[in-house]
Amino acid sequence: MTPERPGATRWKLLLEYHGGGFVGWQRQDSGRGVQQAVEEAVHALTGEPATVQAAGRTDSGVHALAQVAHVDLVKPLDRDTLRDALNHFLRGEPVAVVAAEVAPADFHARFSALERGYLYRILNRRPPPALEAGRVWWVPTPLDAAAMHAGAQRLVGHHDFTSFRASECQAASPLKTLDALAVARDGAEIRITARARSFLHHQMRNIAGTLRLVGEGKWTPDDVSRALAARRRSAAGPTAPAEGLYLTHVRYDPG
Amino acid sequence: MTPERPGATRWKLLLEYHGGGFVGWQRQDSGRGVQQAVEEAVHALTGEPATVQAAGRTDSGVHALAQVAHVDLVKPLDRDTLRDALNHFLRGEPVAVVAAEVAPADFHARFSALERGYLYRILNRRPPPALEAGRVWWVPTPLDAAAMHAGAQRLVGHHDFTSFRASECQAASPLKTLDALAVARDGAEIRITARARSFLHHQMRNIAGTLRLVGEGKWTPDDVSRALAARRRSAAGPTAPAEGLYLTHVRYDPG
Repeated sequence: MTPERPGATRWKLLLEYHGGGFVGWQRQDSGRGVQQAVEEAVHALTGEPATVQAAGRTDSGVHALAQVAHVDLVKPLDRDTLRDALNHFLRGEPVAVVAAEVAPADFHARFSALERGYLYRILNRRPPPALEAGRVWWVPTPLDAAAMHAGAQRLVGHHDFTSFRASECQAASPLKTLDALAVARDGAEIRITARARSFLHHQMRNIAGTLRLVGEGKWTPDDVSRALAARRRSAAGPTAPAEGLYLTHVRYDPG
Repeated sequence: MTPERPGATRWKLLLEYHGGGFVGWQRQDSGRGVQQAVEEAVHALTGEPATVQAAGRTDSGVHALAQVAHVDLVKPLDRDTLRDALNHFLRGEPVAVVAAEVAPADFHARFSALERGYLYRILNRRPPPALEAGRVWWVPTPLDAAAMHAGAQRLVGHHDFTSFRASECQAASPLKTLDALAVARDGAEIRITARARSFLHHQMRNIAGTLRLVGEGKWTPDDVSRALAARRRSAAGPTAPAEGLYLTHVRYDPG
């Protein structure tokens, strides 16, 4: 967990990005990852072959308001210079370094995280999005946000989330504790917010796709409980699209 | 002012668009206007050679949350069908018809308007925008929003706005009444909101560019008053970019 190279400083980076420009956090054969963009900027600045590790490996199209990553750098830099210089080399990319700070040597963006927060945005109106295109899931049929919130409460707590987990999910266990899941309407927008120590692959998107069924009145909150108990992916609703999902925060021990 | 074609119904359309995809409301030799996109959708739906007239001829890059336009159509349609069918033909364009309703025969989107509202968004932080790219003016130097608000008050009221008017402005008179102009900070974002019966060409963008000088401490509110009194474009600050500007509403007599 400590820096691999002698004399290196471990840096914590706060990143904002629009997921539409990338194939996700990790590079794929199909295209460019956020990780790659940041690593190239680090290399352009320092000449060092740095690996940038993130708290959450967001999927293709998923946005981040405050992704956290760490990187080890030998080159001496102050935090404002590092932030501004990385943004210089990231010009034209839909990713920005919002802050950089020195982290303890044993800090790990992924393994030290105590909590992750996500937001799922639904634009719930007949007209499609124009200003918010690519930033929301457009659901034209009327949704009952209060019913969705009631259904969401059936998922809060420690559960086997097999029904809400992508088949390709690599987590060792489907057991997770969802600390909070709330649904609220703000005009034409429905916002689903969630907090947990960690999430399974597609968990938030499968939850959003399931809560849509509740919002449409096709499912009751009891149906959500039954889907959860079934421990079978096909028992829950479809996977909502990536473009509505935002990683909103990652929390660490303040020490 | 009344419909030109016998038997035509005058329709009022509420439009949302991302200005980045267009050269402005009106078509230009340089490219596609929002008006053209909407007129093509109307023609595709009705076969009628319709002219769509808007409350405000927004510049290239300027966004609209609720532009209002009118159009005369002979084809009989109900309002939900018209809205949904226009959105069908506008698929892939960054413009949406939020609502359609029958208007009185003498309704004119531009000349009947009693008030227009604009929002100017500034992202005031060192890191450039990633998620909000193309939707805000990025100003990395710290701005004092309270000072900007104090400076803004010098522009409220009935004045000769020659100093804040583009040289190519075609309005007959530079005299306008600015009913409200407010500046407020929300985190890293500074929001300038304005209301007036009508605005001069570039008036909001020139106000935003001038208030930036106040926010940076380079100008005092008294300097804003002096710039206004000078009645000379070069006496005020530079023109802020289009991408931060949103037409937020157009108000009409409810009768």
